[in-house]
Amino acid sequence: MNGAEAFIQTLKLCGVEVCFANPGTSEMQLVAAIDQTPGMRAILGLFEGVVTGAADGYGRMADKPAVTLLHLGPGLGNGLANLHNARRAGSPVINMVGDHATYHLHYNAPLTSDAAGVARPMSDWVRVSQSERDLAQAGAEAFAVAQSYPGKIATVIVPADHAWTEGSAAVAPPTLPAPAQVPAEAIAQAAAALREVDGPKCLFLGGRALREDALVQAGRIAAATGARLVCETFATRHQRGAGRVAVEKLPYFGEMAEAYLADFKAIVFVGTEPPVSFFAYPGKPSFLSPPGAALVRMASLREDALGALTGLADTLGAPPEPALVQAPTRFPAEDGRLNSANLGAILAELLPENCIVSDESATSGGAAFAMCAGAAQHDWLQLTGGAIGQGLPLAVGAAVACPDRKVIALQADGSGMYTNQALWTMAREQLDVTTILLNNGSYAILNIELMRVGVQNPGPKALSMLDLKHPEINWAEISTGMGVPAVRVSTAEEFRAALADALAAKGPRLIEALL
Amino acid sequence: MNGAEAFIQTLKLCGVEVCFANPGTSEMQLVAAIDQTPGMRAILGLFEGVVTGAADGYGRMADKPAVTLLHLGPGLGNGLANLHNARRAGSPVINMVGDHATYHLHYNAPLTSDAAGVARPMSDWVRVSQSERDLAQAGAEAFAVAQSYPGKIATVIVPADHAWTEGSAAVAPPTLPAPAQVPAEAIAQAAAALREVDGPKCLFLGGRALREDALVQAGRIAAATGARLVCETFATRHQRGAGRVAVEKLPYFGEMAEAYLADFKAIVFVGTEPPVSFFAYPGKPSFLSPPGAALVRMASLREDALGALTGLADTLGAPPEPALVQAPTRFPAEDGRLNSANLGAILAELLPENCIVSDESATSGGAAFAMCAGAAQHDWLQLTGGAIGQGLPLAVGAAVACPDRKVIALQADGSGMYTNQALWTMAREQLDVTTILLNNGSYAILNIELMRVGVQNPGPKALSMLDLKHPEINWAEISTGMGVPAVRVSTAEEFRAALADALAAKGPRLIEALL
Repeated sequence: MNGAEAFIQTLKLCGVEVCFANPGTSEMQLVAAIDQTPGMRAILGLFEGVVTGAADGYGRMADKPAVTLLHLGPGLGNGLANLHNARRAGSPVINMVGDHATYHLHYNAPLTSDAAGVARPMSDWVRVSQSERDLAQAGAEAFAVAQSYPGKIATVIVPADHAWTEGSAAVAPPTLPAPAQVPAEAIAQAAAALREVDGPKCLFLGGRALREDALVQAGRIAAATGARLVCETFATRHQRGAGRVAVEKLPYFGEMAEAYLADFKAIVFVGTEPPVSFFAYPGKPSFLSPPGAALVRMASLREDALGALTGLADTLGAPPEPALVQAPTRFPAEDGRLNSANLGAILAELLPENCIVSDESATSGGAAFAMCAGAAQHDWLQLTGGAIGQGLPLAVGAAVACPDRKVIALQADGSGMYTNQALWTMAREQLDVTTILLNNGSYAILNIELMRVGVQNPGPKALSMLDLKHPEINWAEISTGMGVPAVRVSTAEEFRAALADALAAKGPRLIEALL
Repeated sequence: MNGAEAFIQTLKLCGVEVCFANPGTSEMQLVAAIDQTPGMRAILGLFEGVVTGAADGYGRMADKPAVTLLHLGPGLGNGLANLHNARRAGSPVINMVGDHATYHLHYNAPLTSDAAGVARPMSDWVRVSQSERDLAQAGAEAFAVAQSYPGKIATVIVPADHAWTEGSAAVAPPTLPAPAQVPAEAIAQAAAALREVDGPKCLFLGGRALREDALVQAGRIAAATGARLVCETFATRHQRGAGRVAVEKLPYFGEMAEAYLADFKAIVFVGTEPPVSFFAYPGKPSFLSPPGAALVRMASLREDALGALTGLADTLGAPPEPALVQAPTRFPAEDGRLNSANLGAILAELLPENCIVSDESATSGGAAFAMCAGAAQHDWLQLTGGAIGQGLPLAVGAAVACPDRKVIALQADGSGMYTNQALWTMAREQLDVTTILLNNGSYAILNIELMRVGVQNPGPKALSMLDLKHPEINWAEISTGMGVPAVRVSTAEEFRAALADALAAKGPRLIEALL
């Protein structure tokens, strides 16, 4: 078999089942190899940011990698922003990036670029295939890297001649190591801090510590120590809802986050590092934990969060039943003009059991997150790396990974525009995604940030750079143009009816919420 | 003044007048500085590929740089593909890329990335500001680099604290060197080849050799020697039409290009290098010029093409009047079902004098290019780097640079989807762009390429990765959703009426041509 076939078959042997693809000429042998490999699904995205964001969503929900198919350095470039987000999420992703044939590179044809150089800033691992046989080996190595707990970004550059040359063969899947366990000393330090420090204490949770099983252990620790449970502002995958252990969310703005943490005398970090301000601001601190508090880094993102929390709960002699179990809650939704409050209340009320929420709602969505705390159980996925344009592609990937679960994309307008092409893939694959497009006609967050960095009295030119109203974007038209049925709503009653309708059906829908 | 103000004022002193922007929080001081600088126009793009592609189009038409405003490494990543194209075009572009404050970087906040590492593969020059005063100096240096003949990509990374710190000042514009002249020896070699070699000869033209003034000199050389004039397949800016010196176009596919060049015994290259195959294919050559022919590289892209051609014409004692002056031509347009032939004929017939065509028409547009050869005079801009998604942003930039000229975007559907957000900027700025969207529901070129790389009998999965029909994209809906009035046409008569209507009016329009 040729190198492309050996590569794809190796990935298949590893358990990779999905390829999110945007191929070009230099990837035609890879296209043919996918074509010939039963059990390897090919899903076309009409822009590479859709492809990489979908791989992130798939990885978060499947806990194993999809493979992307990208066209040389520029195609990979288009996918970098969502690879950045995926990397920050600790998602498993394998990229296969076609490149010119090795002997063709030095001719400097128009599409020639330093593909490995483009890959490096947003990859954990980059490997250029050295031959048609090495290509399959690179695939197996990429799988092992991608599956490093909880997940990494592994990029293989595939010269076209390695893909088309005969004489290769699939290689056996690698043995995957278990997640790194935290040392007993770290658990003992955490136990000591929670037992011995006077005053308010918390567990600060991120990464895999926000999965249901880990949260049960965190809840046991809370029961034993009275510690509060707080989580990072942007979570990869937060399993929540009525009956699960509830976690407070650190506020976004640095000064609010600092004030939120100020009273804690001990903080134990699990699955994440001590939080820092998202951006720097003149005269404001970057590091947010209170000076003088005992800060115990019990488990990093790359260490076994469940094991660490279980070990800590047992060390503390915690009871088997967790504290802080979330009761079902309901919020009244005021009729009339739609706003983020009644939208959030209605969403929480109608949220389907076991659904997945892809949240890139920015300023319009905070109420929805808070109000869904006591809704039906769900997974809440967020923008982990701050590179906007993630929400719709993430929903695509989550829906591919979990075809039996309803996916709700809670999407702001400004960020939605970056990767609007995701709607077409939802239509093509008839993915069960309901997109709630929050149209406020503005990069609203930037109007706030302009003030926060100290800009007084911005003029019309500055404000025009933050405004999406001239002209107004009609998302319903864009959506139907790409094959996703859409409605526009501007009252709570209309939103409730449209959401109920969308959730009762299977397949993609878009509800444009005019806020 | 603060560093941002000094930087923007320095660019203004250099003559930079336009900023294509997609800012975020870390760029708010730059936004404020632009706001306060009269004569610096800010144009918002809703995706960074629009921003960088517009800067390319502006640079090609204005022969001076616009500045882009991009948000950290991921925002720059989104703009890389069109920077690749701009670099291949030899366009002048300055990028200003915001980054975290220097002291904030080591905290590894979510949006932290290696911005300079992202910039390097698609920039000719990358510079990280070292202080608030150095930032202005970096601006002046970037301008000098961007204006290196014919143009380069200069990227400045702007840490937020350098932007907001007071105590800086604008610096004086640099003195720009004249374009590098070719050595007399190169001209003598070219003259000798054209005089002494027996058999067919040609000038092979690219870069600035395709401007009207240089073509007059090429036409003089043709008159003196009988040499044919051939140009590169994808030209940055080709000035053509009735009354101008006509140039033949090298075919795209390698084997056709090789056959096209096979009979030449001498080829003189001006403004470009000997052509190579766009992609490699198994068993097909990369280098396309005939073995045994005399190949004279008289002027590279970076050497003065006009000076070289004038010198060669004078050396040859060429007559003052050029040969190969294009006569007006007209092609009959068959009525009925719209296809690329009658579309091209109608476009050629109605093409407005002195218009600009942004051509990313791929398989559907070849007839239009050929048929416009003898149409009213125009500038034809092409996809120089092969990274698709350039056409609509390029039209934005050309229209900003030349507000008194009609711009026609001849845009294929697959590539148009990458940067469809450009339509919104056309609407916001009321740019005089008529987009002809060629909807054939396919990555048609890839169906051809799949065969050419040797894939026999592709299965449904392979074909699905090249197909845009399921679902069909309704570009008219997408366009009106972004504020650009649109019509769909499927016959020659409808197309003629829609085009005449669009050309008679000012402002953005989209004609969706169903092929």
